[in-house]
Amino acid sequence: MTEPLSETVAAVERLGKRARAASRTLGGAPTAQKDAALAATAAAIRRERAALCAANELDLAAARAAGLDAAFVDRLALTDAGVEAMAAGLDQIAMLTDPIGEITDLRARPSGIQVGRMRVALGVIGIIYESRPNVTIDAAGLCIKSGNATILRGGSEAIHSNRALTALVREGLRTAGLPEDAVQLIDTTDRAAVGALIASPQYVDVVIPRGGKSLIERISREARVPVIKHLDGVCHVYVDDQADLAQATRIADNAKTQRYSPCNTMETLLVAQGIAPAFLPPLCRIYVDKGVELRGDVATCALLSAAGLPCAAATEEDWRTEYLAAILSIRIVAGLDEAIEHINTYGSNHTDAIVTEHHSRAMRFLREVDSASVMVNASTRFADGFEFGLGAEIGISTDKLHARGPVGLEGLTSVKYVVLGSGQVRG
Amino acid sequence: MTEPLSETVAAVERLGKRARAASRTLGGAPTAQKDAALAATAAAIRRERAALCAANELDLAAARAAGLDAAFVDRLALTDAGVEAMAAGLDQIAMLTDPIGEITDLRARPSGIQVGRMRVALGVIGIIYESRPNVTIDAAGLCIKSGNATILRGGSEAIHSNRALTALVREGLRTAGLPEDAVQLIDTTDRAAVGALIASPQYVDVVIPRGGKSLIERISREARVPVIKHLDGVCHVYVDDQADLAQATRIADNAKTQRYSPCNTMETLLVAQGIAPAFLPPLCRIYVDKGVELRGDVATCALLSAAGLPCAAATEEDWRTEYLAAILSIRIVAGLDEAIEHINTYGSNHTDAIVTEHHSRAMRFLREVDSASVMVNASTRFADGFEFGLGAEIGISTDKLHARGPVGLEGLTSVKYVVLGSGQVRG
Repeated sequence: MTEPLSETVAAVERLGKRARAASRTLGGAPTAQKDAALAATAAAIRRERAALCAANELDLAAARAAGLDAAFVDRLALTDAGVEAMAAGLDQIAMLTDPIGEITDLRARPSGIQVGRMRVALGVIGIIYESRPNVTIDAAGLCIKSGNATILRGGSEAIHSNRALTALVREGLRTAGLPEDAVQLIDTTDRAAVGALIASPQYVDVVIPRGGKSLIERISREARVPVIKHLDGVCHVYVDDQADLAQATRIADNAKTQRYSPCNTMETLLVAQGIAPAFLPPLCRIYVDKGVELRGDVATCALLSAAGLPCAAATEEDWRTEYLAAILSIRIVAGLDEAIEHINTYGSNHTDAIVTEHHSRAMRFLREVDSASVMVNASTRFADGFEFGLGAEIGISTDKLHARGPVGLEGLTSVKYVVLGSGQVRG
Repeated sequence: MTEPLSETVAAVERLGKRARAASRTLGGAPTAQKDAALAATAAAIRRERAALCAANELDLAAARAAGLDAAFVDRLALTDAGVEAMAAGLDQIAMLTDPIGEITDLRARPSGIQVGRMRVALGVIGIIYESRPNVTIDAAGLCIKSGNATILRGGSEAIHSNRALTALVREGLRTAGLPEDAVQLIDTTDRAAVGALIASPQYVDVVIPRGGKSLIERISREARVPVIKHLDGVCHVYVDDQADLAQATRIADNAKTQRYSPCNTMETLLVAQGIAPAFLPPLCRIYVDKGVELRGDVATCALLSAAGLPCAAATEEDWRTEYLAAILSIRIVAGLDEAIEHINTYGSNHTDAIVTEHHSRAMRFLREVDSASVMVNASTRFADGFEFGLGAEIGISTDKLHARGPVGLEGLTSVKYVVLGSGQVRG
């Protein structure tokens, strides 16, 4: 499927020019018009349910023929319920408050000018993702509502599904009187297209990669445009010696076992040595019963062995690993200082929680742990756009500049300074 | 002065490690302690005025011996008044509100958790600048107040001045009980040090280059860490046919001639064709009397020639040029649409102003001109941290992500999500 390099680059450039032009219209579009586009797209998706499933069937057949595994095929599949969920997602995005156009903090200055800030769209957003076709609709919906044009690049295995879905979004935009080029799909499976997209700051204001670590690392390394991303979710729960142990057990259990694959699942449990003998054996019995493999430091292994529980020796590499699986590393620490030091050394700046009833320690943890989301007495699994009240999220950022943590509509916007004068000049 | 590459890289790495460690202390330091460091530094600068001027004299002598021009030597010179201005600048920064630690938008969610955002320091900031030694103190002061450790890299021609100034800042930090490594100077003139600094994301969270376009272009191209920057200030004033012409004349005159070298000085004047015959000749008479060279499109040249005023033909390149000099390009446009199109095509997304009494056109200009600062009926020269009420600025950003426009204390911070729970787990 590889096309000549120059043709792919030229095709991405055409997309970029059209996206830039469409972004100027969409960036200034009234809320009602953007919401109408979302509603029309949702209606089209519901109307074309059978056609969408038929397009998806082409992708599924190709995936099965290529011998891709069942988990992969499962992520690729669009069910009737999945189609309805996409439409319902657009309905929800339409109900969110439009962030664009608001002028805040308008203040008179001694010179007589008034200075404020206006929230505006970023412009053109590139979304690079893997097999799940529903990302096409989620991403397009969030970008439309935030006034941004989008260039989508889904996984090649989902190309028929993504073509069908993108056509419905473009129909929705046309129905609402908005430029259909506000949402475009890179309609080639040539990998050079991604390279061209992320090297085009003149057409693309930011790229958001969603997928595995190797995809995101490659894009971060090669991009000439800003990237909103997270690489790893090595999340910690620290159980302090002043914790309510029943609460700590509930949180540590939930943070690890509610689901193993999300990025906000705990990968390392840190326990204050003062309460480790009382706390760890009963908690680890729960883990073992649920099939979680335990890897501990020397003190943890000794404690669990004495309680008749299996525990492998954790290596230096374990402390840095996002397992995304039923594996947990455990370390006994002297107290808060050592816990913060461990998290800031080995963590991924994603989400970390302390369980404690000691107020000052809780506040120190919030201040000093250098992560996008820091929590007291709650499960790391709450680090999510819906749970945080953003309405929806396009991803999670572990960067410190611009968006940090779950990224909702506001993370897809910028602010500019506005000055209202009445003839003032600088003296 | 070139040292072996590996030694320079190792030296920058040592600085980076010390900065990272110091940033953890400074990031959590109370406001009073940071302000005490600023006050102690200001006192030390006033006390050591003679020693500072003597160190500066070494730089001046070397610059003169090297045959550097008078303007360069002028930028390098520290006068008694300049020393006092640096100390007074620190006093002013101490009076600004500390942005760090504030938790905002704390809201209860249906799950029972409370979610808010805490403003925190970025960590370690690299500042790369050219000949003016006062930047050493301005940058160190803003970074201390915002809780960030700093690694400074000044121009090699100012090395004696910068060493003396950095020593006083470090004395101020020690006096206040803060780690002196919160402010460090790259004390080599080896250019490889800059390359090492901007390729060290593990030690440096953001780099702010201040200086000429070639410096900033090089750093943007090579940096592996985020960069806050502006390359160009190709600023426009558009005079609409509904403008108050007396006001428009005052603004267009001030925007160009109040000072020629700042980045917020107007470089291109756009005039609606309806008022060009009445407006341009008297305004251009003012420019010509002040020695401003005019370069116009065909219509402008014809109009000015008929009025007996000199006007050269502007080239395509003129529309893209930041003159930083007594030169102005002028174009007559059909109206608002063409003005916005011109600015978004040729501008540098820095600062642009409209002069009009037509409300809807003013609002369209604010929304649709894609620049960091957009103004109605005011001179572009107001785009400045002090004029905007930020108290001080470390620079101006034309990027859309993170800080945009004049960058004050807030632009040197990040926010993280904080979650306050009472044992909640995800269902």
